[in-house]
Amino acid sequence: MSCVENMLMRCDKRKNNELRPITVRRHFTEVLPGSVFISAGKTVVLCSACIADELPKWMPKDSTKGWLTAEYRMLPGSTSPRTPRSDRPDGRSTEIQRLIGRSLRAVIDLNKLGPRTVFIDCDVLQADGGTRTLSITGAYIALVDAVRTLQLPKMPITDAVAAVSVGIVNGIPVLDLPYCEDSAAQVDMNLVMTGSGKFVEIQGTGEDAAFSEEELAQLLKLGKQGIKKLLQIQKNALHNGEEKRYAM
Amino acid sequence: MSCVENMLMRCDKRKNNELRPITVRRHFTEVLPGSVFISAGKTVVLCSACIADELPKWMPKDSTKGWLTAEYRMLPGSTSPRTPRSDRPDGRSTEIQRLIGRSLRAVIDLNKLGPRTVFIDCDVLQADGGTRTLSITGAYIALVDAVRTLQLPKMPITDAVAAVSVGIVNGIPVLDLPYCEDSAAQVDMNLVMTGSGKFVEIQGTGEDAAFSEEELAQLLKLGKQGIKKLLQIQKNALHNGEEKRYAM
Amino acid sequence: MSCVENMLMRCDKRKNNELRPITVRRHFTEVLPGSVFISAGKTVVLCSACIADELPKWMPKDSTKGWLTAEYRMLPGSTSPRTPRSDRPDGRSTEIQRLIGRSLRAVIDLNKLGPRTVFIDCDVLQADGGTRTLSITGAYIALVDAVRTLQLPKMPITDAVAAVSVGIVNGIPVLDLPYCEDSAAQVDMNLVMTGSGKFVEIQGTGEDAAFSEEELAQLLKLGKQGIKKLLQIQKNALHNGEEKRYAM
Amino acid sequence: MSCVENMLMRCDKRKNNELRPITVRRHFTEVLPGSVFISAGKTVVLCSACIADELPKWMPKDSTKGWLTAEYRMLPGSTSPRTPRSDRPDGRSTEIQRLIGRSLRAVIDLNKLGPRTVFIDCDVLQADGGTRTLSITGAYIALVDAVRTLQLPKMPITDAVAAVSVGIVNGIPVLDLPYCEDSAAQVDMNLVMTGSGKFVEIQGTGEDAAFSEEELAQLLKLGKQGIKKLLQIQKNALHNGEEKRYAM
Amino acid sequence: MSCVENMLMRCDKRKNNELRPITVRRHFTEVLPGSVFISAGKTVVLCSACIADELPKWMPKDSTKGWLTAEYRMLPGSTSPRTPRSDRPDGRSTEIQRLIGRSLRAVIDLNKLGPRTVFIDCDVLQADGGTRTLSITGAYIALVDAVRTLQLPKMPITDAVAAVSVGIVNGIPVLDLPYCEDSAAQVDMNLVMTGSGKFVEIQGTGEDAAFSEEELAQLLKLGKQGIKKLLQIQKNALHNGEEKRYAM
Amino acid sequence: MSCVENMLMRCDKRKNNELRPITVRRHFTEVLPGSVFISAGKTVVLCSACIADELPKWMPKDSTKGWLTAEYRMLPGSTSPRTPRSDRPDGRSTEIQRLIGRSLRAVIDLNKLGPRTVFIDCDVLQADGGTRTLSITGAYIALVDAVRTLQLPKMPITDAVAAVSVGIVNGIPVLDLPYCEDSAAQVDMNLVMTGSGKFVEIQGTGEDAAFSEEELAQLLKLGKQGIKKLLQIQKNALHNGEEKRYAM
Repeated sequence: MSCVENMLMRCDKRKNNELRPITVRRHFTEVLPGSVFISAGKTVVLCSACIADELPKWMPKDSTKGWLTAEYRMLPGSTSPRTPRSDRPDGRSTEIQRLIGRSLRAVIDLNKLGPRTVFIDCDVLQADGGTRTLSITGAYIALVDAVRTLQLPKMPITDAVAAVSVGIVNGIPVLDLPYCEDSAAQVDMNLVMTGSGKFVEIQGTGEDAAFSEEELAQLLKLGKQGIKKLLQIQKNALHNGEEKRYAM
Repeated sequence: MSCVENMLMRCDKRKNNELRPITVRRHFTEVLPGSVFISAGKTVVLCSACIADELPKWMPKDSTKGWLTAEYRMLPGSTSPRTPRSDRPDGRSTEIQRLIGRSLRAVIDLNKLGPRTVFIDCDVLQADGGTRTLSITGAYIALVDAVRTLQLPKMPITDAVAAVSVGIVNGIPVLDLPYCEDSAAQVDMNLVMTGSGKFVEIQGTGEDAAFSEEELAQLLKLGKQGIKKLLQIQKNALHNGEEKRYAM
Repeated sequence: MSCVENMLMRCDKRKNNELRPITVRRHFTEVLPGSVFISAGKTVVLCSACIADELPKWMPKDSTKGWLTAEYRMLPGSTSPRTPRSDRPDGRSTEIQRLIGRSLRAVIDLNKLGPRTVFIDCDVLQADGGTRTLSITGAYIALVDAVRTLQLPKMPITDAVAAVSVGIVNGIPVLDLPYCEDSAAQVDMNLVMTGSGKFVEIQGTGEDAAFSEEELAQLLKLGKQGIKKLLQIQKNALHNGEEKRYAM
Repeated sequence: MSCVENMLMRCDKRKNNELRPITVRRHFTEVLPGSVFISAGKTVVLCSACIADELPKWMPKDSTKGWLTAEYRMLPGSTSPRTPRSDRPDGRSTEIQRLIGRSLRAVIDLNKLGPRTVFIDCDVLQADGGTRTLSITGAYIALVDAVRTLQLPKMPITDAVAAVSVGIVNGIPVLDLPYCEDSAAQVDMNLVMTGSGKFVEIQGTGEDAAFSEEELAQLLKLGKQGIKKLLQIQKNALHNGEEKRYAM
Repeated sequence: MSCVENMLMRCDKRKNNELRPITVRRHFTEVLPGSVFISAGKTVVLCSACIADELPKWMPKDSTKGWLTAEYRMLPGSTSPRTPRSDRPDGRSTEIQRLIGRSLRAVIDLNKLGPRTVFIDCDVLQADGGTRTLSITGAYIALVDAVRTLQLPKMPITDAVAAVSVGIVNGIPVLDLPYCEDSAAQVDMNLVMTGSGKFVEIQGTGEDAAFSEEELAQLLKLGKQGIKKLLQIQKNALHNGEEKRYAM
Repeated sequence: MSCVENMLMRCDKRKNNELRPITVRRHFTEVLPGSVFISAGKTVVLCSACIADELPKWMPKDSTKGWLTAEYRMLPGSTSPRTPRSDRPDGRSTEIQRLIGRSLRAVIDLNKLGPRTVFIDCDVLQADGGTRTLSITGAYIALVDAVRTLQLPKMPITDAVAAVSVGIVNGIPVLDLPYCEDSAAQVDMNLVMTGSGKFVEIQGTGEDAAFSEEELAQLLKLGKQGIKKLLQIQKNALHNGEEKRYAM
């Protein structure tokens, strides 16, 4: 009955190696230096970046290095039925915001950043699978916008970074899973890669079925193709002029 | 030095009885029946409404009446500098979400709603004063959209409701204060009124200076003018066709 | 059946513009400089005030101004059935303690207070309506007692402040509502006014029924009459000699 | 300099085996069946008792036995300087409320009580040593008042219970220690005993100095004397007519 | 039916004044200076001690005295059925860790310790009654091991300390109760005594039945016998060479 | 200076593809059906498993399937300096316990388990790197022991599962990193594999340096070798007779 059971084709008729349509809007709000509204299909994330002249308490006070930290949360109205607001990040959100933080720190030279903290906030406005990978892809753009405002002598951003999900659904490796496929996947993998084609993170899970080395190779190949396209979309967005804001 | 100190005119050159420009976008996201993106100047709120066939625990299980509850939160990136995410709603947020709930319950017949709960979420994407009143004004539209999807024999919405702030700044009564004025106001008042011109809530505070009856009368007059315009904007928005979503 | 349904007269046979009988006892306990036991009918509140030579963390360390903060809580045994003790102030308590703080700050010159913090605690020993307004009225007396002990060159208290509730019950405006009336009121309003007859706070709510401008005028008139009497009771209490304590 | 250092006599000139003056006022508030205001010197506690027709969740639903539970808290204004209100009971409060509960359960037949829960609340209005023992002594009176209102065929209260502190200060065993002595005591002991002269609890601590068997014997003797007098005070209070309330 | 009901003899066939078999293993783990694995019958506790060159926040920064603090927790798997992990120490754990701390502080000269904090952790690996007393007995050994590593000029440990439980089961006083007896005891008492035969703590509770002075005397006698043997076991353990660790 | 800087050889002189020495002790405690004490070098974990005839609240009450859940925590004394006990699992612990749960659920048929919940507890007694992977390896043995006691007609365990860490230190891929290497690694990867040689989880992170596909291949190869040996150790442990417990 479900679209997945007779999967001659994907729910949304995409090819197995095709990304969902991506929308990027920089400077969505204007109070923060980095504010990126990004959507992939029905998944919509607002990524903010701002930079403070302070350091986290756990760092030495006289540090010349900076830090980057990230928070991830889903708005209650991002899902149907509504997700109750929880007092603190649940296990899943904690895991995701740690992943976003590590991924972005991989492409920023904290020494060149100097004694500052970059705060990344990824708030999911609508969730339809792939929120964590879209958060990374969008947050990178917000990060660049925010760091540019510092006008540092040496740019601390050392490379681009983007992320995508891949998985095995009904035995078939596919790229960029919407919720409908994600919840039925035998294997679920998130890939984070740099502009120079290296891995920052590989997180693959086979809860219902363990996966072979051959399947792993297929998934990595699909993921690399997707990330290549996402890196190009980021590049285009960052080269375009300042777009108009929410007041459309 | 500040715009307020020499206030020959308002920060944003508005007349004292002029509202900020308002933008309304219905069905901003699509998973929930009510999703309204509303802005007034730089203040931007995403108002969601959804309805569940369940009742809060404190109501009798066999109740034939329903309930409406509201939550209000500011995204960390809605202000500059960023507002740290707090584990639970702080005192101010609690006060505001109780106000939003009472205001909307004033215009819904919970008996006609039947044993259902309406959940309203007001998430502030950018804050520049008047977030609580804009939340009420926007949430009313989301509420109507959500209730309409129930296709009930008798419409439970009994009237419209809108809200606006008024205040005394530099001794002068003004309408719809941005943050710049709000933080310098001697008197700060929020008014919630129905389509039929009655008061649902009056909340006036003079922390720095108590106010006289004459000043109260001036503020009420200004507020009524503003709310009249907001009620018209709501009406227009609800009569327009379904607008396109975030994918602009 | 309920006293409210056939309200030819009020539950406790008072006139519509009559306050409940008030008892005030200063220096109820002796360890703190301000300790006022105040009752209005069956509503009983213990109001404490003490002053510390320290500032809240959010104020600049070298501030020459002081601060006043208030806490409000109901003892579990103040109601029947007993109210379970909650870990943290619930929404209602938070709202009330913010109101108490704002009301008292309106009549204290924080510059003259100097770099000190006044702590006000209002603990409700028995609740029968009007606990927040009685708290303000009693806390003002405790505040004066506590500030007097500082023997400052210039008295920082700039005016008196008192509060009362008014409401519309069965369509009739009444003063100083006990719980029995409060829970059946169509409109509920709390007024906080200074000795010089100005408003500090107006909080009017019509959850079941919105109210007209004419009704507002009637409520304000009733409230002003009640507050005038409360201000006189405060004055008398502060001019009387030190009363004996709980050891009666 | 301190009264303890040259202790030729006790701070308050009492004999070593003398209790502080005790005041008891039953029905201090009127909404709950048991409400006892009790003071011993400057220590003042409000003890409430009420009974609900429900059982704690951990008991079997069809239990024919009841339960008694107690809570203990100090009001912030009970000490100078003020004690900040804590979100949850701290270690000391937890320990004390468990002690109060056990002590009262020792004199109530939970089978005769039937499937009900007795809630005891001990709120310290002013603290000057001995708050936990005074709480037990006062709560017993509130418990009797509350249970009497049930008009059960068989009285579930099986015995009286009272408590007192003893200690060794400057090497000398003394009865009923105020804070001044308590904080300087080498040995601190709380005794809870029944009307029939048996021990319910012995809690003796020698943090600064361990104590010998002979010292233990002296402390037990002093304590028994004190408790005998407290039991008589309870008896008198419970045989007196209903006293007037706070509205004095 | 239960072993206790027809108690001609104890569950585990011990004499009434007999301890359970004790095992002690010093240096169970190697990262901390004090790490003692101790068991009494089926009760097993891991006691750790470590010392930091810092003081708790509530002590003056320039204190020349140190402090000792203790934490006690049961592992979820220490009982059958499993005990759910709680977010914070429950009332019982709080009471116990405060007892452990007081007991060990009774035998350490905090002035000689200097401005350091000793952290004691007692984690119960398997619980079968007497976990708090076994924790004290084991933690003393860990404390000595940890303090020895400081190589202070004057040894701050002033005496030994050990603890044991006694109780009245089926009317008969017994020593060192396993869970089976503990849960059926009319009187339950924990004794903490020093090497010189003085009391540090007496905690006796008769929840089901109050106890007479004669019964108290019998319990104290039994307890003293048990503690004498425990002190000898501690002594032997501390004089033995360093045992091999968990890697057996 | 550090062992890592001039790494001609590994800290503990192992070969790059060599595991640390492993100790396994089944039935370490006796109250729970599965209790495994496992060490790898200085890393020591106590893994418990027990099974309850109940289901988590989020599962349908009439489910015929079961569930397995895991908790992971480090004892405060497992590290030097001591790790403060936190009220709730921090981000890292949450991530780890979710990983342990997923890994074990990959080898248990929850339908064959029936409507029961398996609780796994992994408490780290001493931490020297690789605690999460050792927890999985040890918990599998505890799981088998616990499930065997159910004596189900069809064994729900479908395969073995073990885990190991690999990483790149000073540019060289190594197996089973102790803390000393882990904290200096450029790439850190945890592998979870089944007895049949398939992947359950791959979690690779390059915070300081992204890694190439070739490096990924080397790490996977090392990991597979290590896991093969661990699976053999598990097998041996499960075929040996019941070992003696902690009372050694």
